[in-house]
Amino acid sequence: MKKSTKKVKLAALLTLSCLVMQSISTSVYAEASINDSSAQPKTHHLPANSDHVRWGNIGMGEPVLSVNTGDIITVEAVTHHSGDDYDRMIKGDAGVEDIFQWTKERKNESDRAPGVHILTGPIEVKGAEPGDVLEVRILDMNLRPSGNPDYEGKTYGSNAAANWGYLNGDMLEDPKTREVITIYEMESDGTTDYAKAAYSYTWTPQTDPDGKVHNTIDYPGVIVDHDTIVKKQDVLKDVRIPVRLHFGTMGVAPKEADVVDSVPPSYFGGNIDDWRIGEGSTMYYPVSVPGALLSVGDPHAAQGDSEMNGTAIETSLTGDIQVILHKKKNLDAKLADLSFPLLETEKEWVLHGFSYANYLAELGADAQKAIYKNSSIDKAMKDAAYKSRRFLMDGMGLTEDEAYSLMSVAVDYGITQVVDGNWGVHASIDRTMFSEKATRLITLRDRFESFGAKVKWNNTEQAITITYRNNTLVLKIGSNEASFNDKKVKLHSPIQLVEGSVKGTEYFAKIFQAKLMTDK
Amino acid sequence: MKKSTKKVKLAALLTLSCLVMQSISTSVYAEASINDSSAQPKTHHLPANSDHVRWGNIGMGEPVLSVNTGDIITVEAVTHHSGDDYDRMIKGDAGVEDIFQWTKERKNESDRAPGVHILTGPIEVKGAEPGDVLEVRILDMNLRPSGNPDYEGKTYGSNAAANWGYLNGDMLEDPKTREVITIYEMESDGTTDYAKAAYSYTWTPQTDPDGKVHNTIDYPGVIVDHDTIVKKQDVLKDVRIPVRLHFGTMGVAPKEADVVDSVPPSYFGGNIDDWRIGEGSTMYYPVSVPGALLSVGDPHAAQGDSEMNGTAIETSLTGDIQVILHKKKNLDAKLADLSFPLLETEKEWVLHGFSYANYLAELGADAQKAIYKNSSIDKAMKDAAYKSRRFLMDGMGLTEDEAYSLMSVAVDYGITQVVDGNWGVHASIDRTMFSEKATRLITLRDRFESFGAKVKWNNTEQAITITYRNNTLVLKIGSNEASFNDKKVKLHSPIQLVEGSVKGTEYFAKIFQAKLMTDK
Repeated sequence: MKKSTKKVKLAALLTLSCLVMQSISTSVYAEASINDSSAQPKTHHLPANSDHVRWGNIGMGEPVLSVNTGDIITVEAVTHHSGDDYDRMIKGDAGVEDIFQWTKERKNESDRAPGVHILTGPIEVKGAEPGDVLEVRILDMNLRPSGNPDYEGKTYGSNAAANWGYLNGDMLEDPKTREVITIYEMESDGTTDYAKAAYSYTWTPQTDPDGKVHNTIDYPGVIVDHDTIVKKQDVLKDVRIPVRLHFGTMGVAPKEADVVDSVPPSYFGGNIDDWRIGEGSTMYYPVSVPGALLSVGDPHAAQGDSEMNGTAIETSLTGDIQVILHKKKNLDAKLADLSFPLLETEKEWVLHGFSYANYLAELGADAQKAIYKNSSIDKAMKDAAYKSRRFLMDGMGLTEDEAYSLMSVAVDYGITQVVDGNWGVHASIDRTMFSEKATRLITLRDRFESFGAKVKWNNTEQAITITYRNNTLVLKIGSNEASFNDKKVKLHSPIQLVEGSVKGTEYFAKIFQAKLMTDK
Repeated sequence: MKKSTKKVKLAALLTLSCLVMQSISTSVYAEASINDSSAQPKTHHLPANSDHVRWGNIGMGEPVLSVNTGDIITVEAVTHHSGDDYDRMIKGDAGVEDIFQWTKERKNESDRAPGVHILTGPIEVKGAEPGDVLEVRILDMNLRPSGNPDYEGKTYGSNAAANWGYLNGDMLEDPKTREVITIYEMESDGTTDYAKAAYSYTWTPQTDPDGKVHNTIDYPGVIVDHDTIVKKQDVLKDVRIPVRLHFGTMGVAPKEADVVDSVPPSYFGGNIDDWRIGEGSTMYYPVSVPGALLSVGDPHAAQGDSEMNGTAIETSLTGDIQVILHKKKNLDAKLADLSFPLLETEKEWVLHGFSYANYLAELGADAQKAIYKNSSIDKAMKDAAYKSRRFLMDGMGLTEDEAYSLMSVAVDYGITQVVDGNWGVHASIDRTMFSEKATRLITLRDRFESFGAKVKWNNTEQAITITYRNNTLVLKIGSNEASFNDKKVKLHSPIQLVEGSVKGTEYFAKIFQAKLMTDK
């Protein structure tokens, strides 16, 4: 195609886009990318170092990166628990060393307040305004290998049974208020899908470089002096923890305050601690401030619903995320008036409820302290119930009676966490119930070829190979596993051969189109 | 084998059994059945009619059937909501008509108190004593077809948004306290795995045969006069509810009272309302009274975690269950001192916590009324946390610190129900974590041939066919689906071919051995 033709086509497309915007808002980006190669996303890299992170604050701040809608960001996220094992989780990794740098003379990240998480960002999304919705697609997620040659090929994570844990002070054995760190080990390349405990130790008073003694885990980034602890070996012997890589904290800046504690999650997302926020999932956040200001951090290797003892397997991860801006005037019914962080996967929508839907607004000037004294699961359940009723009514066009019946016979309510100040209950809604509307199968060849990818069918293998921008995707009919650049990717449902065409869901196509467009 | 030889072998086996009882308690039955064909289970049939059910009471009572450990019972369970649509759910079904029989002159089930459920039983398990554990394996479960020829091949269920629902009085639209019945339709033969709404109506005052007016749903078994209601059509159009057949209520009689409300679940099981208590799952209950006195009822076609509006899709079901008695002195670590209803599947253990672990003992003489005023999810979560810690420590041999870490990084806590007086939170523990101990693969041919089944391998189909007692099981390598007597059965994990042998888990083998031994 010649350049001049392209321009004409682009103009025509833009006109067309304006006309149909109202009805196709969720696929605005996809529409553009299909017809105009100049709209292809730019891939950015946001390495973890002291220039790109903040510690404990998910509020306003100077962007470290500015991107357009559709852009893909390879974002490195570092765990704030790395100091629990300096040798395995910090040493030899220049970026992590830089973030944790703290001597009497120099402390790179001196503002570690009011919360605890290391957050990469904020990332500005150009054109984002209050009232818009920011979609964040998690395309890829990988463990960060230990930088220490002694632990080559391994990644470590820390689980802290901390003083903010659910059973703190309520232990059966003495001392009843102990804090215990368990270090977990994984293969960095993801060849095994489980973590194993390496060892554990009970927290002992730690003196930081400024001379302050930390009798409990009360400040982030303190490097534990391993000469002061007793390591317990053979912990959780023969137990394999299923890996569920996810970002514990991801969200946009709220409007209610400039500096916002990273710990309590709320309508803007943040520290939701839902293990479903992993590879292949999509989050939607209501934008509250110009530029949205997206922060990503608190990476986890595994967590159960409740995050009982206060933490997950806290480890460092790198993700590829794609951001899509949905303008207020074009929002479809599910996203209009979005007042909470919404998760979407190929199989379900997950609505996040909290003890306080917007604690910053509800609890007054002292909200950031008050939230720690007022949470309950009962309150969070009520919020999740209200949110799911509203979503089914406004988003899916059901009457109140239809929504309420469906909530009882088909929606699952789970306990997200009971340790983050603002406790969480999530509602999982099976998308496949709305089969016609939500899980329509599309022909993958048409979709992938529309933006220039090459598609090849192998009859013997019953597989198609899709190549684009040095990326290769291989899909096998009937298999629950795809291969992307030789990395295995688990699919929610197998790819199907229907009347001679390879089919997948619209959701599948949107995630893999973006993966193919990622430029590394 | 001649009879005399059999007797000698049986005696030898019994001696051996006593010696090894301590270590193999959970497989006592399996051991016996492998070596002695006379120990094969008897299959009983417990049809639903007014002779075999009680209404509202899960306490003490005259057994309607007495069985031995290992026996299989085909138990018919009828929903107490059948009166919501007499034509579709009662008419033409002699058993259901018999149970619901209520005229001025005659009321077959006159004691419908203090609870609401129709419970088939109680079933006495010979030799069961307080301190033992009763294992109940759910081998099969099928919808009960409508008895009305007008609805041939269909099964109907009722969902009532009832006055005890979670959002009762808290509706957005007026009237805020309405009760709404939605009738759902399914294919009786299970060829489709979803339910669809047929129609709905708002509850109107109903006059029972004794002349009492029921302004709300306040008494079970009232037949709704369809001349008094307005049917709303096109309800939940195009929405397909995934079917999750299960018993809402199943349990043994508690020791604390003779007459016990069937509504609040507790340590003895009862109205747990966990949709996981379905085909292929196993329940363990602590026995409190001689004979255990097992009741089965409150069948559900589908329910979400929380049972938000007060009910599930309440429908009638027939199940095959096998009961195994574990004597107190032989209990293995996971079952010793069992103080709650424990669910086991091939993939997980599910521990049931409640606002009050044993409300009958904890809330005093007035417990059966007080429980309705004191429940909360927060209390149930604490109970579920305590139970999972204890299970992981005593049952899996972990230290308290190991258990607490595992609970945080791998155990999922969900909200079972918020409508049954004693609210529930369940803890799902992935068994595959304990890979060596809990999910060891065994050679299926050896296991099935050991009790006399015929096993045939078909190399072209990569399938084995197992036949016994007119039952046929077909397993295909790599498939998540088995065929049992031509009915499709979903498996938790595919059957594997390992070094030339067809392998499955111990759990798989125990369920399918019992299915093969069922005599119909």
